Amino acid sequence: MDFYIDPIGKLINEFSKLPGVGQKTAQRYAYRIIGMSDDEAKEFADAVTECKRKVRYCKVCGNFTEGELCDICSTRSSGTICVVKEPKDVIAMEKLREYKGVYHVLHGVISPMEGVGPDDIHIRELLERISRGGVDEVIMATNPDVEGDATAMYIARLLNPLGVKVTRLAHGMPAGGEIEYTDEVTLSQALKDRKTI
Amino acid sequence: MDFYIDPIGKLINEFSKLPGVGQKTAQRYAYRIIGMSDDEAKEFADAVTECKRKVRYCKVCGNFTEGELCDICSTRSSGTICVVKEPKDVIAMEKLREYKGVYHVLHGVISPMEGVGPDDIHIRELLERISRGGVDEVIMATNPDVEGDATAMYIARLLNPLGVKVTRLAHGMPAGGEIEYTDEVTLSQALKDRKTI
Repeated sequence: MDFYIDPIGKLINEFSKLPGVGQKTAQRYAYRIIGMSDDEAKEFADAVTECKRKVRYCKVCGNFTEGELCDICSTRSSGTICVVKEPKDVIAMEKLREYKGVYHVLHGVISPMEGVGPDDIHIRELLERISRGGVDEVIMATNPDVEGDATAMYIARLLNPLGVKVTRLAHGMPAGGEIEYTDEVTLSQALKDRKTI
Repeated sequence: MDFYIDPIGKLINEFSKLPGVGQKTAQRYAYRIIGMSDDEAKEFADAVTECKRKVRYCKVCGNFTEGELCDICSTRSSGTICVVKEPKDVIAMEKLREYKGVYHVLHGVISPMEGVGPDDIHIRELLERISRGGVDEVIMATNPDVEGDATAMYIARLLNPLGVKVTRLAHGMPAGGEIEYTDEVTLSQALKDRKTI
């Protein structure tokens, strides 16, 4: 930060903390802030403070919320629970405008490599929800990678004895994909799960 | 922003105002803020506010400063002035640790296409500095593109009658460049300005 005056150096340092932001990009962002009007810069800073201050986690599903319960938990019937890794996965599902059930955000997946065990993510909270009854189906919507699959399997084994139907998002060819460039695991899954047309 | 709760939507909107930041990146940044500790988020917001509040322009050269004069203007002799387009160009020059003169930041270049004329950038301030005397050389370090070259030529014509030596950064092959992939203008310049070795 030698070459920057103190307030600019500090701001560049802060922007560098954002994911994927290096020195050069952080500098561009800082210069954009300097180029803003006083009101614009204030709005920017306030948005950061307010977001951090107001955003909490829903007591039921773990999604982001401003109140005790998130909008989804407080307005939808809880017969179907879609289990996801992170709040951003809820956004992705909601954008479909198809799913009408509720969610459960694990806030991570089981990953022995990174020292994340079943107790480190919100599995216990999921079991408690289900033990309260009224849940017909749990849809596992963790990512289709090793850790996401393992987490889905782990949870399914816990839930099956409780008599709850546990499903998993289908694996297969993504829309617009090309057979030639599809990885072997995906292609193999797509073949195994082929459907009559 | 339909799918985001209000404080997150607002923050994503603010991050989207940064150069080159789209919706997806803004979302990643917002989630990073939510994942910060209260203190970290406060530091971030404060850095934005403080940077905007403290950073001013040097009365002499137009570079960023906290006081009246920038560190460079207040500590170096002003016999040589390096003229640049923007404050970030000062940083690039300073990183060389070779140039020991002062700067003049134009805050833009002449660009008829974008409606920027000579009066819209800090050329008058440069003339005033030079008319005060004591300047031996003015190094034009605007970008080697059409607008940068035109601006350099324009300023050179204004300064030549004043008896000040005006120079321009050399044009030529960039270090590590390949002849095969060098654009014609650059290659032509490099040929014209070839040096005896």
